[in-house]
Amino acid sequence: MTKYGFLGIGIMGKAMVTNLLKAGLDVTVWNRTPERCTPLVDMGANQAQTPAEVIEACDITFGMVSDPEAAKAVCLGEHGVAQAMTAGKGYIDISTVDSDTSRALCQTIQGKGGRFLEAPVSGSKKPAEDGALVFLCAGDESLYRDAAEPLGIMGKKSFYFPEIGQGAQIKLVINMVMGTMMTAFSEGLALGEQVGLQKSDILEVLAQGAINNPMFQLKGPLMAANTYNPAFPLKHMQKDMRLALELGEKHNQPLNTVAAANELYLKAKRNGSDDEDFSAVMKVIEKK
Amino acid sequence: MTKYGFLGIGIMGKAMVTNLLKAGLDVTVWNRTPERCTPLVDMGANQAQTPAEVIEACDITFGMVSDPEAAKAVCLGEHGVAQAMTAGKGYIDISTVDSDTSRALCQTIQGKGGRFLEAPVSGSKKPAEDGALVFLCAGDESLYRDAAEPLGIMGKKSFYFPEIGQGAQIKLVINMVMGTMMTAFSEGLALGEQVGLQKSDILEVLAQGAINNPMFQLKGPLMAANTYNPAFPLKHMQKDMRLALELGEKHNQPLNTVAAANELYLKAKRNGSDDEDFSAVMKVIEKK
Amino acid sequence: MTKYGFLGIGIMGKAMVTNLLKAGLDVTVWNRTPERCTPLVDMGANQAQTPAEVIEACDITFGMVSDPEAAKAVCLGEHGVAQAMTAGKGYIDISTVDSDTSRALCQTIQGKGGRFLEAPVSGSKKPAEDGALVFLCAGDESLYRDAAEPLGIMGKKSFYFPEIGQGAQIKLVINMVMGTMMTAFSEGLALGEQVGLQKSDILEVLAQGAINNPMFQLKGPLMAANTYNPAFPLKHMQKDMRLALELGEKHNQPLNTVAAANELYLKAKRNGSDDEDFSAVMKVIEKK
Amino acid sequence: MTKYGFLGIGIMGKAMVTNLLKAGLDVTVWNRTPERCTPLVDMGANQAQTPAEVIEACDITFGMVSDPEAAKAVCLGEHGVAQAMTAGKGYIDISTVDSDTSRALCQTIQGKGGRFLEAPVSGSKKPAEDGALVFLCAGDESLYRDAAEPLGIMGKKSFYFPEIGQGAQIKLVINMVMGTMMTAFSEGLALGEQVGLQKSDILEVLAQGAINNPMFQLKGPLMAANTYNPAFPLKHMQKDMRLALELGEKHNQPLNTVAAANELYLKAKRNGSDDEDFSAVMKVIEKK
Repeated sequence: MTKYGFLGIGIMGKAMVTNLLKAGLDVTVWNRTPERCTPLVDMGANQAQTPAEVIEACDITFGMVSDPEAAKAVCLGEHGVAQAMTAGKGYIDISTVDSDTSRALCQTIQGKGGRFLEAPVSGSKKPAEDGALVFLCAGDESLYRDAAEPLGIMGKKSFYFPEIGQGAQIKLVINMVMGTMMTAFSEGLALGEQVGLQKSDILEVLAQGAINNPMFQLKGPLMAANTYNPAFPLKHMQKDMRLALELGEKHNQPLNTVAAANELYLKAKRNGSDDEDFSAVMKVIEKK
Repeated sequence: MTKYGFLGIGIMGKAMVTNLLKAGLDVTVWNRTPERCTPLVDMGANQAQTPAEVIEACDITFGMVSDPEAAKAVCLGEHGVAQAMTAGKGYIDISTVDSDTSRALCQTIQGKGGRFLEAPVSGSKKPAEDGALVFLCAGDESLYRDAAEPLGIMGKKSFYFPEIGQGAQIKLVINMVMGTMMTAFSEGLALGEQVGLQKSDILEVLAQGAINNPMFQLKGPLMAANTYNPAFPLKHMQKDMRLALELGEKHNQPLNTVAAANELYLKAKRNGSDDEDFSAVMKVIEKK
Repeated sequence: MTKYGFLGIGIMGKAMVTNLLKAGLDVTVWNRTPERCTPLVDMGANQAQTPAEVIEACDITFGMVSDPEAAKAVCLGEHGVAQAMTAGKGYIDISTVDSDTSRALCQTIQGKGGRFLEAPVSGSKKPAEDGALVFLCAGDESLYRDAAEPLGIMGKKSFYFPEIGQGAQIKLVINMVMGTMMTAFSEGLALGEQVGLQKSDILEVLAQGAINNPMFQLKGPLMAANTYNPAFPLKHMQKDMRLALELGEKHNQPLNTVAAANELYLKAKRNGSDDEDFSAVMKVIEKK
Repeated sequence: MTKYGFLGIGIMGKAMVTNLLKAGLDVTVWNRTPERCTPLVDMGANQAQTPAEVIEACDITFGMVSDPEAAKAVCLGEHGVAQAMTAGKGYIDISTVDSDTSRALCQTIQGKGGRFLEAPVSGSKKPAEDGALVFLCAGDESLYRDAAEPLGIMGKKSFYFPEIGQGAQIKLVINMVMGTMMTAFSEGLALGEQVGLQKSDILEVLAQGAINNPMFQLKGPLMAANTYNPAFPLKHMQKDMRLALELGEKHNQPLNTVAAANELYLKAKRNGSDDEDFSAVMKVIEKK
């Protein structure tokens, strides 16, 4: 029976591993703060003390951490993934990182004889819980095939791109569009309220039209109720906006609307919303 | 049998009247360029020489013209709606106009004893053809009830707001969100292509995610094929963006993302895309 | 001896009339709130009860009010300028208005046989006090020549353009550049402080470089001291930014930087800085 | 007699070394493309084959290269500054780099016993030729004192800040304000022309007002004549805008106007203006 590892038990990681365990897979977990693993251990997961121990114990390991620095630390640091990597084992990084980071991890893993796949996900807390994520995989095609079972449990759909970095890039493209749609949506709700309309009426009208989408449906009523529990933390959205803008700068692609939206997320961070849902950008838009 | 009038036979008007005629309603039409009425007359419509003639002949008349100036001209000008308006008749302005214009029309119509409803639509060419528009009605509630039949034929849903101007305002809110989503979407497709991704792959990934929506589904493949036949002309979208920004200025509501998007539509107008679909904003975003 | 009139005794008007009186000119003043005229009457001015009375009493009258609506009210309203205008008299509107307004005033005045000059000023409180304003005159050239004396007392330089509207337009161009420079300057000071630099050090370095200018010199130390007494009220700057953006929309000229700056002024208005100096835009830029 | 070194003979370096030589100083130069040193050798400079050779031969060496990567290559690369650095020698990096880079260079130099000063300059080609640069020095105070003579020859003013990184930061603050003023200025000239005004008239009016500054004076007539010979290349300005925005992101300081301006420089790069003067951003602003 294939043994799976999972590094990083945050909001997303916890939901994903829960689904793997429910499906009966053998999973060994690690998290920087070990206590976060306890509920998963109670469900049957094994717990390791370091990323290296996970790699040693498993055939295929997933990594799901918060940013490029954390992805590098977990993979390249002391007692990290690379130290224990050997020929044939696979490491799948599901974190959202820039393509330079992905390429650096890939090179190190391959240097040890291992197989590497970047597989950033589209979808946040709810899809993670429902096993309805979308995986944007790029890199080793044999590993993509070998990981079909857990990818199929955690997600509703996987895409495969041959070139390392393309998974990360398409993820950034999606997220920058999403982040900008959220500021536009917030500006719409704020303007509506300012002129005397009810947010609920605006949401009902939007639901009938060509721009209706699951995000507006899900977040709209929560925003109308000033509820910003994090499904996708604002600081991560701002990070993705920044990475997308950097990608634009590297390729001379102006992104005027995205740049304006990014400054609003920065304002929201300044205003203390780092760990709230990214829809909390609404708060600075409707603030006096 | 109730007699209906329809002023303004553009892309939208033609589709709407076609549906009314197919449903067997009695419709009298007028258009500034009379020839555009011919196909409708062939289908059974009556044709009048002036807006006033339409009002005289009909119980309830719809007006669907391109901007506030045209709406005022048709209603308040020589041989216009107001000249022929009498007690009990109804005029329903489906054009997208600012709320000052709506209030001015309302006052004039009511001064003649008539009933007035503003009813801007959400939806462009395709929903108009499919009888799937959404009407955002505000004003005289008895007229709203009396027009239930044609509204139900032309649209899939109608909303009623008591205060004149609110229909126009909610329409602007929707359209400014739509216009900004389109520039963000275009920036995403342009960035993707610039880094070596296929537009078709981006669209497929988007279709799986939380921001999937009919507009991206419908316009995306056309944009990927550089096809910009007007469903909703760019100059009208820019006009709506401007009206929304003016509304924001009046109510001290900053609209940072919308303002950035509006400048892109202006650039597109400068570039000659006035009469193309508003998705042609893509062209200036991906231009050298 | 030529008799001069002056309508509108705000911050600017008061300083300008003071200079005319000091130079020994005969001046009749009017203000909507009559008490504001008292200090000028004490210095020798005559006071009238309506704009029309001023026109009757004077050869050449200046109007200096806050926005296009006020300019139209004073000129075209009851007991307004137009009512009393007769052949040969001159009216010089120094307010900053859009060119449509200017043209409307011009037409009415000329219809009465009068002469009209638009002459928006560049310069705020301090230059007004120092007689160092710059007048951007457009319209009747004979009136421009006949008003040389008072223009020379109130200002250090006058420009003449033949076409009505051009004075207003060049004024808007200058003010929109000024308003955007101010937000950029504020962003620089705010970023500097955020990284641990002293505002005073930044100002000293700026003073040595290619972008040093009287506005940074004058406002910088006040902004560093959180002092925002109005030389040029923020609401007027925002109005000029808006008029410039409208001019851009009319002529298909995208103004991306100006549009971003304008939203900051709107935010500042929302934050209650309408009547503070326009440099108070700093407050929303450095706000949490 | 103190021996001075100079690494990087671009537009700026050439002008600066010329002034040092004219003042009779002993200067050894190096450039990646050695031929660029020839005119300086003809004036009396010594030429070395590598940065390390310059350090060996000199007491105090200046480095003036185009970006952080080049600054690191010259200092930390093979045959670089660090290889030859010994106790007591000084290295002054005048390039504009981010503060992380400055700190990395400083640490390496100090590890070899050397003294390090970052000293980014304010001022471009003309001030460099006139010996009128402004140096923003941070780091080793003894080196700042020991370099007083050449700093005084090349510049009109030097500032000293104790903490490494502060020179770079204040430089970025100045340049981001400058870059944004330039886009605002360009938008003003473009709008003016679009409404029928002459650029020369706008420049004359600007010259009378509170925002008059050497940059508008110098660049305005060149821009009116479509002349964009590089005093400060556009790609370097865009780099500085990006570094400033990154600094803002690190410190949660929104920079809305700067972000909008940056996208215009990106557009200009896309349009091929990398090596033109940064005022060539005008070209994309007035482009169809």
